[in-house]
Amino acid sequence: MSYATQMEAARRGIITPEMEAVAGEEKVDAEYVRSSVAEGRAVIPANRNHGGLKPCGIGRGLRTKINVNLGVSRDCCDIELELEKARLAIELKADAIMDLSCHGSTDEFRRRLIEMSPAAVGTVPIYDAVGFCDRDLKDMTAGDFLGVVEKHARDGVDFMTIHAGINRETAARFRKNPRLTNIVSRGGSLVFAWMEMTGRENPFYEHFDELLEICRRHDVTISLGDACRPGSLRDATDASQIQELIVLGELTRRAWERNVQVMIEGPGHMPLNEIAPNMLLEKKLCHDAPFYVLGPLVTDVAPGYDHITSAIGGALAAASGADFLCYVTPAEHLRLPTLEDMKEGIMAARIAAHAADIAKGIPGARRWDDDMSEARRNLDWERMFSLALDPEKARRYRRESQPEDQDSCTMCGKLCAVRSMNRVLGGSDL
Amino acid sequence: MSYATQMEAARRGIITPEMEAVAGEEKVDAEYVRSSVAEGRAVIPANRNHGGLKPCGIGRGLRTKINVNLGVSRDCCDIELELEKARLAIELKADAIMDLSCHGSTDEFRRRLIEMSPAAVGTVPIYDAVGFCDRDLKDMTAGDFLGVVEKHARDGVDFMTIHAGINRETAARFRKNPRLTNIVSRGGSLVFAWMEMTGRENPFYEHFDELLEICRRHDVTISLGDACRPGSLRDATDASQIQELIVLGELTRRAWERNVQVMIEGPGHMPLNEIAPNMLLEKKLCHDAPFYVLGPLVTDVAPGYDHITSAIGGALAAASGADFLCYVTPAEHLRLPTLEDMKEGIMAARIAAHAADIAKGIPGARRWDDDMSEARRNLDWERMFSLALDPEKARRYRRESQPEDQDSCTMCGKLCAVRSMNRVLGGSDL
Repeated sequence: MSYATQMEAARRGIITPEMEAVAGEEKVDAEYVRSSVAEGRAVIPANRNHGGLKPCGIGRGLRTKINVNLGVSRDCCDIELELEKARLAIELKADAIMDLSCHGSTDEFRRRLIEMSPAAVGTVPIYDAVGFCDRDLKDMTAGDFLGVVEKHARDGVDFMTIHAGINRETAARFRKNPRLTNIVSRGGSLVFAWMEMTGRENPFYEHFDELLEICRRHDVTISLGDACRPGSLRDATDASQIQELIVLGELTRRAWERNVQVMIEGPGHMPLNEIAPNMLLEKKLCHDAPFYVLGPLVTDVAPGYDHITSAIGGALAAASGADFLCYVTPAEHLRLPTLEDMKEGIMAARIAAHAADIAKGIPGARRWDDDMSEARRNLDWERMFSLALDPEKARRYRRESQPEDQDSCTMCGKLCAVRSMNRVLGGSDL
Repeated sequence: MSYATQMEAARRGIITPEMEAVAGEEKVDAEYVRSSVAEGRAVIPANRNHGGLKPCGIGRGLRTKINVNLGVSRDCCDIELELEKARLAIELKADAIMDLSCHGSTDEFRRRLIEMSPAAVGTVPIYDAVGFCDRDLKDMTAGDFLGVVEKHARDGVDFMTIHAGINRETAARFRKNPRLTNIVSRGGSLVFAWMEMTGRENPFYEHFDELLEICRRHDVTISLGDACRPGSLRDATDASQIQELIVLGELTRRAWERNVQVMIEGPGHMPLNEIAPNMLLEKKLCHDAPFYVLGPLVTDVAPGYDHITSAIGGALAAASGADFLCYVTPAEHLRLPTLEDMKEGIMAARIAAHAADIAKGIPGARRWDDDMSEARRNLDWERMFSLALDPEKARRYRRESQPEDQDSCTMCGKLCAVRSMNRVLGGSDL
């Protein structure tokens, strides 16, 4: 290959096999994909060492993608269970999987995950660094952190969350503008703690050029983490969050100078009316780099239902410009998700993404809905099931409650409006 | 009493006990409630015969309310089960209950429901007419329909869905503008079928003045039904829907002339980007009458998850002006909901309503979130549970998965950002 990264190729006018694959998947022109990658408006996370990857594009004009989190930790160190979660995520059409492993056999798990996953794999190297290095955080060095990044890059990780924006300047802004919930980003809090304990600048910020060189060599897409993502409605769109976003915009340009692909991570907890303005802010301050959001969760009060609070925020965010949604499960704020929680979270995220794709006019997105509605009008239950987001659940629900009239359902029975209209418009009485 | 309806009282400058109650509940000025009711921007559904009613205001500047549907039907004729659903709805803080009974002991059920419900009770008289009168629909007369309205009014029903907007003019518009899913409103399809089979004008439209007189006498709030609410994304914001809305706006003025309170019913299935424009249309064409929406469901493809598709649409609708959300359960499009489905639906609707109240700046709405987030920052689990939308589910989730560190949860364990920040900002190491 005569190029290091997808972005380098794109800028040199080369349409890579990955761009072709994305174009085919999205039913758009390959040249559109190339120009989007060249200008940084889209990324194709595709580490050169990730064999078996099915390339996926994230960015403007492309279908909104969803990510699933999993990984081994102190409280859940069963590699096989986490791999089962990965298989479920792929079966349920997750576009990417983030391995948030932070304890135990993180190396083995990561290797096996990359080997089995056709979906892009992301990591947060600082989690692994803290879990893997058998030292206190304050004794770790910038070299330790970069070493983990390099290791993940060699293993074939397609994108990595790097909390480079919480530098001294952002930290000072945070201290001057007190927040209700401080820093709720796990990686962000670790970087902040390290800075506090060592008195040094954020290692990912200070050594950003070295980090870019590692990412360039392996074509790792940098996902610039938002340490100051709001952890409560109160903290949304505050000085710390926006200060960090400004820094992320500057880092984006530096990455692009090296042909390293970039996306930006975003909120968080956020009132519904602040979501669209935040999408604009990201696109402006970060020069149209793809936006990867967690939530946004539109209320703080619903633990147990945060797949719903985030589906509301995610749909609105993606309709207003976000490109990539991180799933949130009903277990958020309470515990690690089970397989059942994962499924709920994936379905909610897919609904949000699809609703947004219809709203932002992604070509062909609404065809699915039209097909479903045609099946509904025809009372063609088998076709409704086959088109359903979750055919198994739809089939099970109907089976549990059999109507007297087999062509309707127990919701309306003989008063079924579809049935009545079909008869009357067909010239019959009811 | 020297007034027939809340609206008459309001217009005569009288602050009724119901207005006082609403003002107390909403923490707004009673004069604000009075002027809102006088101008039709808010309603207080409060039938003079509904003893034990806790009055509830619906309209601009007031908290977004939610409604729960239930009732006896051919496929579910167990009165006791439906009353259990009503008790659950009240326990879970539903603001109103619609009795959609259409078969069997509808009279007994309605009487018992009104007797036990402090929440406003609504009905759709045409369902009961079809189920109750032992005749074919086509043999029924306008007098039969009005008779049922009168009966419900005497029984103490607080608001009634009346499909008066699907008149000959709207029906002609519907025929000229073909739809993918025709008419999916159950009541609307029955009225349309009756018109087709008898060749006559919509009886609720033709006899609207008589109907108003019944409603005025008992202070029944009319909920003007939207027969042409879209049943698919494709049909949203089409000629039939908007034509009917224009007619509903005219009927609203006629009702107001008789001091009858009115709200307007709305979509339905609708792409996310069409929701805000539709809220504007309703407020303009219906002169700021409160808007009562079903959903909107932002995609057609997710049977089994329509509590989520409608929470997304409902949140956005209420943030953009809708005042009253009808809950949708996971069973929508598939079967009658169980108690468990109901709970899911109520929680989703309450999340949507609350998220919207924060967005539209309802005074005090965000206090709940701030309290929860303060408890989160303090890792005060008991307070988090007590503040949670669903304390039982939150408690159960956490209990199912015990962390090694009792102050965090298994999601992050020792890497808990809240814990880390509390330590570092408190001057300790991690």
